[in-house]
Amino acid sequence: MTSSPIFERLCLIGIGLIGSSIALRARRDGLVGSIAISTRSTETLDRARALDLGDEYHLDVAEAVAGADCVIICTPVGTYSAVAEAISPHLKPGAIVSDVGSVKKSVIDQLLPHLPANVHLVPGHPIAGTEQSGPDAGFPTLFDDRWCLLTPLATADPQAVEQMTLFWKGLGSMIEVMDAEHHDRVLAVTSHIPHLIAYNIVGTASDLEEVAQSEVIKFSASGFRDFTRIAASDPVMWRDVFLHNRGAVLEMLGRFSEDLAALQKAVRWGDGDLLFEHFTKTRNIRRGIIEAGQETDLPNFGRDQPEE
Amino acid sequence: MTSSPIFERLCLIGIGLIGSSIALRARRDGLVGSIAISTRSTETLDRARALDLGDEYHLDVAEAVAGADCVIICTPVGTYSAVAEAISPHLKPGAIVSDVGSVKKSVIDQLLPHLPANVHLVPGHPIAGTEQSGPDAGFPTLFDDRWCLLTPLATADPQAVEQMTLFWKGLGSMIEVMDAEHHDRVLAVTSHIPHLIAYNIVGTASDLEEVAQSEVIKFSASGFRDFTRIAASDPVMWRDVFLHNRGAVLEMLGRFSEDLAALQKAVRWGDGDLLFEHFTKTRNIRRGIIEAGQETDLPNFGRDQPEE
Repeated sequence: MTSSPIFERLCLIGIGLIGSSIALRARRDGLVGSIAISTRSTETLDRARALDLGDEYHLDVAEAVAGADCVIICTPVGTYSAVAEAISPHLKPGAIVSDVGSVKKSVIDQLLPHLPANVHLVPGHPIAGTEQSGPDAGFPTLFDDRWCLLTPLATADPQAVEQMTLFWKGLGSMIEVMDAEHHDRVLAVTSHIPHLIAYNIVGTASDLEEVAQSEVIKFSASGFRDFTRIAASDPVMWRDVFLHNRGAVLEMLGRFSEDLAALQKAVRWGDGDLLFEHFTKTRNIRRGIIEAGQETDLPNFGRDQPEE
Repeated sequence: MTSSPIFERLCLIGIGLIGSSIALRARRDGLVGSIAISTRSTETLDRARALDLGDEYHLDVAEAVAGADCVIICTPVGTYSAVAEAISPHLKPGAIVSDVGSVKKSVIDQLLPHLPANVHLVPGHPIAGTEQSGPDAGFPTLFDDRWCLLTPLATADPQAVEQMTLFWKGLGSMIEVMDAEHHDRVLAVTSHIPHLIAYNIVGTASDLEEVAQSEVIKFSASGFRDFTRIAASDPVMWRDVFLHNRGAVLEMLGRFSEDLAALQKAVRWGDGDLLFEHFTKTRNIRRGIIEAGQETDLPNFGRDQPEE
């Protein structure tokens, strides 16, 4: 895809689903000269080595970032402050520091106080993933045709933003640049609240006296199983997301609960017209998502193919 | 699959996703001698004829049921009382009357007062479907390896229950017999509440001032798009489900809201341990569903295949 690498030396801190997918695609398409991988767990680092995800493997993050032109933090967002403190003295002047975290305002707040003035902060968030985690979960096409949001500060170096844009395009993404606080509100709706709700209903269903868990499992195909996919996502990552996007999450949750109270009232009073009207208008949104190329149009996501 | 048909003459009232799937499979495997199809809409009836789903097509439901050994009501559950009133004088003595409705107590309450004493009521509910509706949405393998719940009264004729069991096995289903009220509580959890919540969040997301609908659509791949599938289900069918399973839905919704309030409080007060613990225990349920053969183990339901 590129004749010369976008970054001579890339450092990935954390090598889970996202980190390993970046590594696989960047190597496949020659986007970088070499990849240094750092993670705190010996086991994960060994696994990354066995999967041949990079060129160097470091338990010491200070060694990993040394000489890197671009450092991408791919750990849960609760770790960023500590990571920034550990890497800052060792960053190459002019290096780009980026990340893949699902929240962005907190990421800036955690990183900025530690980073030296001579590096460029370009926070990023690829809207891509699966319910699986760890270095084995990655695959090189994860970012294809998905959005990656960059949330640089207004004062950011335009050339650094341009390089990250090129890099993510190389990984297969479409790019949009937006303000970090706006990002956090948008993602609260499209991602954080759906995850919290999915985690919640799966929890509710497993805690009933009258309905056995075996029944929930057997008869899950009627809708519930969709929620269990999201509720199987990485618990540490998601704990940190909620702790670091508290304001937007609580605000959107308030709206969700108000709306649910209205539907609940309609059920209680038998207001069929209100229910019908509500259930009708929600159909169009899915059509829009399918038309935007962000979803399959196959029934049941294609998992139960009509023609086998 | 069978050497002689289970029913000489089957009548399907309503020919949407479920009715058409029954018709396609029953004909494919010779489960019935002939199929009479009835629906109130000329357009739908013409479409059923064009798709060659049956042997006879009737706008008049009284004509359709005449001589049928088994009548399966496949219309929204809000219609059952009227359907029962219309068909009862014309049912063949000894006929089985069944249905595919997603609630069962209300179905019995609606049907029983109208049915003559010489027919057998065996209510049924196949736990199968997609977000699509209408006669074009059906396919013959819809019921394969899915559960079908039968909820006959304690006084029901065992032979009639046995015949419906044979029929649904012929359609590909696994069978469980349970009490109608228990059915309604189980399905409130595994199906009705998930649908109400999905409809609700999609509604909430489309009503925000600060986040444009175009942004919700673009960045939906982060979780939200899963919910839009369920929220694209047939509005009439779902309106009727909520109106006819009010008690169980309101009870389960109360539990859901209590649990959500606890998670909300944990987010507000930064209780990471509570969030982590909750997010961890929900993973096992999905594993159980996959092991029970009710879900794919492919990431993202297989819609974004790693290997293309």
